[in-house]
Amino acid sequence: MHQTNGCKIPVGVLGATGMVGQQYISLLNDHPWFEVRFAAASPRSAGKKYREAVAGRWHLTKTYTPEVGELIVEDANDVSRAAAAFKKGGCSFVFSALEMSKDETRALEEKYAAAGIPVISNASAHRWTPDVPVLIAEINPDHTDIIPAQKKARGWDRGFIVVKPNCSIQSYMKPVHALALAGYPAQRIIVTTMQAVSGAGYPGVPSLDMIDNIVPYIGGEEEKSEKEPLKIFGSIDKNVLKNADFPKISAHCNRVPVTDGHTACVSLEFAGKKPSCMEEVKSIWAAYKRLPQEQNFPTAPQQPIIYREEDNRPQPRKDRDADKAMAVVVGRLRPCNVFDIRFTALSHNTVRGAAGGGILNAELLKYKGYLS
Amino acid sequence: MHQTNGCKIPVGVLGATGMVGQQYISLLNDHPWFEVRFAAASPRSAGKKYREAVAGRWHLTKTYTPEVGELIVEDANDVSRAAAAFKKGGCSFVFSALEMSKDETRALEEKYAAAGIPVISNASAHRWTPDVPVLIAEINPDHTDIIPAQKKARGWDRGFIVVKPNCSIQSYMKPVHALALAGYPAQRIIVTTMQAVSGAGYPGVPSLDMIDNIVPYIGGEEEKSEKEPLKIFGSIDKNVLKNADFPKISAHCNRVPVTDGHTACVSLEFAGKKPSCMEEVKSIWAAYKRLPQEQNFPTAPQQPIIYREEDNRPQPRKDRDADKAMAVVVGRLRPCNVFDIRFTALSHNTVRGAAGGGILNAELLKYKGYLS
Amino acid sequence: MHQTNGCKIPVGVLGATGMVGQQYISLLNDHPWFEVRFAAASPRSAGKKYREAVAGRWHLTKTYTPEVGELIVEDANDVSRAAAAFKKGGCSFVFSALEMSKDETRALEEKYAAAGIPVISNASAHRWTPDVPVLIAEINPDHTDIIPAQKKARGWDRGFIVVKPNCSIQSYMKPVHALALAGYPAQRIIVTTMQAVSGAGYPGVPSLDMIDNIVPYIGGEEEKSEKEPLKIFGSIDKNVLKNADFPKISAHCNRVPVTDGHTACVSLEFAGKKPSCMEEVKSIWAAYKRLPQEQNFPTAPQQPIIYREEDNRPQPRKDRDADKAMAVVVGRLRPCNVFDIRFTALSHNTVRGAAGGGILNAELLKYKGYLS
Amino acid sequence: MHQTNGCKIPVGVLGATGMVGQQYISLLNDHPWFEVRFAAASPRSAGKKYREAVAGRWHLTKTYTPEVGELIVEDANDVSRAAAAFKKGGCSFVFSALEMSKDETRALEEKYAAAGIPVISNASAHRWTPDVPVLIAEINPDHTDIIPAQKKARGWDRGFIVVKPNCSIQSYMKPVHALALAGYPAQRIIVTTMQAVSGAGYPGVPSLDMIDNIVPYIGGEEEKSEKEPLKIFGSIDKNVLKNADFPKISAHCNRVPVTDGHTACVSLEFAGKKPSCMEEVKSIWAAYKRLPQEQNFPTAPQQPIIYREEDNRPQPRKDRDADKAMAVVVGRLRPCNVFDIRFTALSHNTVRGAAGGGILNAELLKYKGYLS
Repeated sequence: MHQTNGCKIPVGVLGATGMVGQQYISLLNDHPWFEVRFAAASPRSAGKKYREAVAGRWHLTKTYTPEVGELIVEDANDVSRAAAAFKKGGCSFVFSALEMSKDETRALEEKYAAAGIPVISNASAHRWTPDVPVLIAEINPDHTDIIPAQKKARGWDRGFIVVKPNCSIQSYMKPVHALALAGYPAQRIIVTTMQAVSGAGYPGVPSLDMIDNIVPYIGGEEEKSEKEPLKIFGSIDKNVLKNADFPKISAHCNRVPVTDGHTACVSLEFAGKKPSCMEEVKSIWAAYKRLPQEQNFPTAPQQPIIYREEDNRPQPRKDRDADKAMAVVVGRLRPCNVFDIRFTALSHNTVRGAAGGGILNAELLKYKGYLS
Repeated sequence: MHQTNGCKIPVGVLGATGMVGQQYISLLNDHPWFEVRFAAASPRSAGKKYREAVAGRWHLTKTYTPEVGELIVEDANDVSRAAAAFKKGGCSFVFSALEMSKDETRALEEKYAAAGIPVISNASAHRWTPDVPVLIAEINPDHTDIIPAQKKARGWDRGFIVVKPNCSIQSYMKPVHALALAGYPAQRIIVTTMQAVSGAGYPGVPSLDMIDNIVPYIGGEEEKSEKEPLKIFGSIDKNVLKNADFPKISAHCNRVPVTDGHTACVSLEFAGKKPSCMEEVKSIWAAYKRLPQEQNFPTAPQQPIIYREEDNRPQPRKDRDADKAMAVVVGRLRPCNVFDIRFTALSHNTVRGAAGGGILNAELLKYKGYLS
Repeated sequence: MHQTNGCKIPVGVLGATGMVGQQYISLLNDHPWFEVRFAAASPRSAGKKYREAVAGRWHLTKTYTPEVGELIVEDANDVSRAAAAFKKGGCSFVFSALEMSKDETRALEEKYAAAGIPVISNASAHRWTPDVPVLIAEINPDHTDIIPAQKKARGWDRGFIVVKPNCSIQSYMKPVHALALAGYPAQRIIVTTMQAVSGAGYPGVPSLDMIDNIVPYIGGEEEKSEKEPLKIFGSIDKNVLKNADFPKISAHCNRVPVTDGHTACVSLEFAGKKPSCMEEVKSIWAAYKRLPQEQNFPTAPQQPIIYREEDNRPQPRKDRDADKAMAVVVGRLRPCNVFDIRFTALSHNTVRGAAGGGILNAELLKYKGYLS
Repeated sequence: MHQTNGCKIPVGVLGATGMVGQQYISLLNDHPWFEVRFAAASPRSAGKKYREAVAGRWHLTKTYTPEVGELIVEDANDVSRAAAAFKKGGCSFVFSALEMSKDETRALEEKYAAAGIPVISNASAHRWTPDVPVLIAEINPDHTDIIPAQKKARGWDRGFIVVKPNCSIQSYMKPVHALALAGYPAQRIIVTTMQAVSGAGYPGVPSLDMIDNIVPYIGGEEEKSEKEPLKIFGSIDKNVLKNADFPKISAHCNRVPVTDGHTACVSLEFAGKKPSCMEEVKSIWAAYKRLPQEQNFPTAPQQPIIYREEDNRPQPRKDRDADKAMAVVVGRLRPCNVFDIRFTALSHNTVRGAAGGGILNAELLKYKGYLS
């Protein structure tokens, strides 16, 4: 059972009643470092107890703690509420799962940061802000080094903003990164995703579109899938993040009748030398352990890339929950008839690809001393 | 209503009680040239009336004619039954939808041909026999020219064998062919398919694998998808079909919870010059009319390639039945970030990709004088 | 192809761009008596061509005629548009598929009737108006006799309103009625429905609720299922419709992952004497032919109740389209362990249960001389 | 992590590689009292390590322990293997999840009992054997009292057989029992079930039957649903179990596209006096705690009947896993328009309704001293 522990860092969740917000609340139930003490959402929910605000709208099997159920939901637009909570020791930083327009989200997240409250965001609003890092804790933990410059440029003393990338790329970024680290960077990638409906929130995708059907389009998803990896693989150049030039990616994004778990079919061409054989690729993936694993962050998967030898895996329902739903599950590695290798990769889009990834980023930031 | 018409060619269906066999029976209900007069299946069904043999196993909304319902099902292994029917004017040629092992199918189809009965096959058994053409009526109708050599080499007087390719490639072969005809042959293709469960027959894919799930593997399907197009795009060289060298294809084949309709996400690189713009590609597709259209074959779609401008099409449930389920529906044409163009294509796997394609091949053969 | 025919009655569709409206448009494509010449919808669609208004929103496989595609959509709230069309011979009556609140719908339908335009409605707004008949053409065609009193009471000269009942009861009302006509009226019915998502319109039911799930609740549906049959089985008493006292019905309504087709599991207790055996019940159902069949209305199913002997039928995907999707398909008749008999019944909810039922009502009204 | 503990009772699983067998293996991973030390299956699996035997066939997210993975699978038909294991202290009793014909299962289970090995069975073979109790641990724990008579009659010294009932009745038996205990026994019940596909095993129900479809029939299920409750509610009379006379049950059993979780819509008529109001019924359900709860059996749900107040619950995906998937979740209690009350109930069919129920029965038997 969850016990209030004086040593935990008090955190807030913006957009706490939405799908990703619920996932944050649920995943933080038993977190050893963080404790939800502040919840904010739209004016419609403001003033209600959290349990009232989500009554009939709670989507997860796992529930929230009684303490969170009794929290009074604040209006997320009113930054002064979080600032007051901060002063009282009730909100040291916030996870942003805001579901507003891009412009509104961008402005509001900046207000929180300006008010001294670090924002660890799930939203796409700031992904292309040059001094905001797009973090995958295993891949580019050093991109947090831009935070001091970000703060300075904006005159923020304590607040800052970091974001995570789109859920559609989570399943294959780590396998690609592992190969690059081993000396085999990718030059070109053609990827087709088959994405779960939870990625569209609730009510999200109408059931009439997902019975005996698939939809070969997700607005904006392909562009994100092609551009965000370049920022993640980029580097800090003076006070901004500079994109990598490669890999060039072409993405086909589809919606399929699956609740959770995005699957990607990847064909990859190496930039230079190539692994000697498929077994070498598998060894590289098996050996891939990074800062979250080395430091044993609470939400980190022990094995970030799990390879399955069966012909017919990964499958969303069977593999999405691997290692707290934080691992990427890969299978079907084989030579590509056109490029060099091809494989299928899967990750849980609302855990690894959303709230779980955000929490892992917070663990990274705490480890690096940016949160307290 | 169906009327027995003295002028129609009497045809048989081998494997008439299976899923594809039922599709043949149903599509031939009102056919202006052909009439089902002979049905053969496994020994289990032999001796029963067709309506008894399919009782509780009929999968289609459309049903069979009363006349077909009264046909006595023969044992498909006993070629003498078809030969006898042929002599009595009751079976001029057969559609083969046999569901046996590859070796058994190959041998049995040859026995029918040797007995003087042309075999128009759905099975994969003879797809790699060098003098058996793999026909898509719009693409390689001239490959029927190998039939005389086939007959001669085997000492067959009247019988011969033609086959159709795998259902997984039907949706993008015509778009690729149209571009090649217009001077833009493809060099390389990376394709991911999302295939319907009817492709696996009945009982086929277990429902436990298709609820909240996809399966990223279909045994043998990727190999077929990569090799068969080369034979179809090939040419007759002396007395065998010689494969084309291009396009090189890499296929990722997935099973998704859709009853009918295979969808393909295609990235394509041209071999030489490239279309000036996406509109040119669409014009080429719109103008694609071939022998089946020119001669107005009964089962031919009027528009073999239908392009839909909506962002989110084609979709299996909405588009698979276009033009008697014989058209290919294409959408989402856009520049590829890695190759030249990319698009999504759809075809009905048990009609265009199976029985309907077989009937169109029969219409082609009749037009060319090979059936009578 | 559809040809404009001077003799057809010009009709309008209110709510023409919604799901049921599209179904009306599509089913009227080739209607021998009626022709769509007027389409109205929300202000958002008003002023656009019909084809523009439904672009990207058309849900059916079957499409609309080119003529309908070019119709300028009117604002349904502006009754003067229909009145003007009526004067020009372009709208003799309207089908109402309005998707407004109950109060708004009730008021607006009355305005159309007051303006001289008969309203054949799909909406539930007027189902409990005492002088508005709830019609199932096979069951209570004589309830149209209340129309003169309805007109008189409201001072309407030409306009009037008739409605159809909820889609959830369509599958078992005719089987129950057939038995009552044969001398076996039902006393009590306990029914559980498994209803398709199209009944909730579009976007309607979220896909997250319909993947690996069912929802045991549909707001308001059980009340309608229990009360509407009593009005339909009722009789005209002076100038109002008086409810029947029986059968008492208890309904459990569930939403299941099916696109079209409501299935009902029915346990029935007879009021008095009981059929001698199950075969007698089947004979009664087989013999059930009523005014729409006798007069051969264009949309009437030839066989209103189709009984299937297979153990595992009816099934939505296989049986919903029987006889133009206008027949009810019944199966699994067997003695009930608690009541007298039990069976499973199915009908297509957006055809028989909505637009098709409305059109059949219009055919009935034309036959009776109420439309011209 | 699982640690071998000298004090645990060693158990065997017959049919260990099938769906229910896997569920047993998985649920016993961390069991405080029992430890899997013996696994038997068909001759096809015999001689392989368990992990080899289930490779590519493992259906659950949760896996087996390394120790179980290394067990050599025995041929279940060879009772001497279990007898030998018993002598060596490796198999004190067996869970039977055999997937043979009824006659074969009955005979084989008797052989195990005759060999001194108690059989706790999931199979239906012995449900109608008069001296074999059909146990639901909360309802009829005292039926274990027939075991001595069963042993004596058959000349078995240590072995005996107990079974659990069909999964289809699990969701509503406890709610009905709770009311009976409170003085409100049921007279008549009409129930419609919507059952998950896992109930049919693997491959089980074809996906073609479960996409955009339901099947209104499950062979034998309705008969079981109507008869088994009478034995469970019965009493020991001399040396046999005598059925109760009530409640009379009429069941409609349907298959729906859900992986796990059977839902039942129940209408119930009381035999005598009735609860004063719905709140009284809910209170009775909330207070229902029985021997498994009182004695805190490891697999017992804390709250055997969980009532949810939301309109639209229980739902399979959201509620099946409540309290280790061992609780029944009930909702929608309301007066019945025909009988007295109606409600919707849900239970997890492969846990509570199969392996979990079997393990709870074993815990009951151990508590009563029948296992050691």
